Amino acid sequence: MVLKMSSDTCVRPEWLRQFCTRLQIGFGIPESHAEIVSDCLVEANLMGLDTHGVIRLKFYLDRIKVGGNNPNPNFRRLRDNPCTALLDVDNALGPVGGKMAMDLAIEKAAANGLGLVLVAHCNHYGPAGYYARMAVPHDMIGLSLSNVLASMPPTGGAEARVGNNPYAVAIGAGEEPPVVVDGATSKASWGKVFLCAQSGDKLPEDCYVDAAGKMTVDPQAVINGGCLLPIAGHKGYGIAVAIELLTGMLAGAALDHEILHPYKHLDKPGQNTFLMGAVRIDQFAEPADFKQRLAEWVRLIRNTRKAPGVERIWLPGEMEIVTRQQRLAAGIPLPAKMLDELKVLAEQTNVPFQPEMCS
Amino acid sequence: MVLKMSSDTCVRPEWLRQFCTRLQIGFGIPESHAEIVSDCLVEANLMGLDTHGVIRLKFYLDRIKVGGNNPNPNFRRLRDNPCTALLDVDNALGPVGGKMAMDLAIEKAAANGLGLVLVAHCNHYGPAGYYARMAVPHDMIGLSLSNVLASMPPTGGAEARVGNNPYAVAIGAGEEPPVVVDGATSKASWGKVFLCAQSGDKLPEDCYVDAAGKMTVDPQAVINGGCLLPIAGHKGYGIAVAIELLTGMLAGAALDHEILHPYKHLDKPGQNTFLMGAVRIDQFAEPADFKQRLAEWVRLIRNTRKAPGVERIWLPGEMEIVTRQQRLAAGIPLPAKMLDELKVLAEQTNVPFQPEMCS
Repeated sequence: MVLKMSSDTCVRPEWLRQFCTRLQIGFGIPESHAEIVSDCLVEANLMGLDTHGVIRLKFYLDRIKVGGNNPNPNFRRLRDNPCTALLDVDNALGPVGGKMAMDLAIEKAAANGLGLVLVAHCNHYGPAGYYARMAVPHDMIGLSLSNVLASMPPTGGAEARVGNNPYAVAIGAGEEPPVVVDGATSKASWGKVFLCAQSGDKLPEDCYVDAAGKMTVDPQAVINGGCLLPIAGHKGYGIAVAIELLTGMLAGAALDHEILHPYKHLDKPGQNTFLMGAVRIDQFAEPADFKQRLAEWVRLIRNTRKAPGVERIWLPGEMEIVTRQQRLAAGIPLPAKMLDELKVLAEQTNVPFQPEMCS
Repeated sequence: MVLKMSSDTCVRPEWLRQFCTRLQIGFGIPESHAEIVSDCLVEANLMGLDTHGVIRLKFYLDRIKVGGNNPNPNFRRLRDNPCTALLDVDNALGPVGGKMAMDLAIEKAAANGLGLVLVAHCNHYGPAGYYARMAVPHDMIGLSLSNVLASMPPTGGAEARVGNNPYAVAIGAGEEPPVVVDGATSKASWGKVFLCAQSGDKLPEDCYVDAAGKMTVDPQAVINGGCLLPIAGHKGYGIAVAIELLTGMLAGAALDHEILHPYKHLDKPGQNTFLMGAVRIDQFAEPADFKQRLAEWVRLIRNTRKAPGVERIWLPGEMEIVTRQQRLAAGIPLPAKMLDELKVLAEQTNVPFQPEMCS
């Protein structure tokens, strides 16, 4: 979701990245971890995924303040095999655990063709595609899955049992942008419920149920024990289940229904598990040939005959790359409220707050 | 889709299996291949997946007769690494190539923890879940993907570019049925279009577009250059794309838009690519503990509070196991028309046709 705002609040991405890092250091996070978190958040903003951008930083720091996240975690490899590993990251910040797991999956794939790494006891990791994209420069296909707290019923159910678990697959396409399939398994988000509750708007049709399992467009009915609905009915329920079993279940860690709400329980440790996978393309094909053929296919899809009123056909993940190019030049739009929030955080830690605007 | 019929046409599964094998042998298929195909088709019928059952046999044999499928294929390993392989099965019948690939993925996972095998130049493989389930008795998680001919537009497009590519993941749950997530990436099937065209019924709403990319419920408008729509809009398009790139693209084989319609081009070689994956559970967890915890979770989901009017909450893949138990006892219902078709095939090859009915 791209936040709407006037252009005069666009900040320079490099300033935002450095400021976020200094802020985290001020809250006791080691510089090497802070840089990972800043990169994850600012990249989300650059790609237009503003709901997963620096808007999340206050939440991360609030959790650090009350002991919910661990700024100095003790990393352990509970299992370590040639192609696989199981990590316990001791309640590290989500992007720190996520990057560590994908780095290790890439290392294992480089040595043995495939890498599959589970990381347990972690926190909200932001956009799934951030981690999957890490494999692309290594001529690998990247896979990223996470379980999250239960928000959806099984098909026919009236209470939340399964998370709207996100997934991403990233595949490099040479001279074309990488193809990145990145989504959550619900039709609409929890965020939408709270936005509509504030604004007084109705929810979109057919996306939410109330506590009795009946369809509703009333945000309050969802807040009072309702659920999100999965994409594509029982198919989305199935995909969310597969992700839960490949993450929390396989790691022996929290299942979706056991995960506490990270906003409501700021002081409780994170319980998310991620699965990161890397597949070396040269196990099956010459990477140069593969990327060239994929780039040609990208152009074929882009040139598909359009339905009435359609301006452009997008490849999965392409819109994010176009937005990124625009925002690298024009800056990252931040609402005044968010700038105020960052200023307050800066004052708490004596970090200078001098936003560099793009005019 | 479960075919509706009266109970007096139920045949003994074991008879059907043996008859299908003898029939294939009569058409020049080696016994070891025929047994694989029979098992795949009869298992589909047992599980209630009748559209992927013995109804497909005439189509397979028609293709054999005119040289479209190769009854005596020459199998080659184009690439062979510790965890991965790329096979060319020389236009073998789909279940033969599919089983070979999953057997090899399981073998590689047994040796190295993970196995990922691509098989190119194959044919329609039936239900994706059949292959994924093969991993379960080995305490492995099974993955099965296939590309198929293009039938869906990219989001905003008005011509078919991507197949409604099927996927399956299977995970054993000890004393409970395995959890098997098995589906196609379209909202509704091509089969539905032809059924409605015959019956004069309208198509379901919001599932199909005409040649201009406009929604239609007219089956003829779909037959004349229309498309299926993906599940969940751009999300289903993305998932179908990921499957295409992980199969035909990674194998250097046919892409979805290059695949000929196997019914319209009976004499042309198959062009499907499958990806089969196996993950050894003991790389991450003790299999006995894992299965016990998963069985407990299955019961938790089954006991979810129900929405109004709902009789039962199903786990993914559970309905198929219940149907299988029923049909093992009561027999496989076959419409009279299909029995007639099997009789004609039997007469062509002098195979005795003495169906054993379940009363």
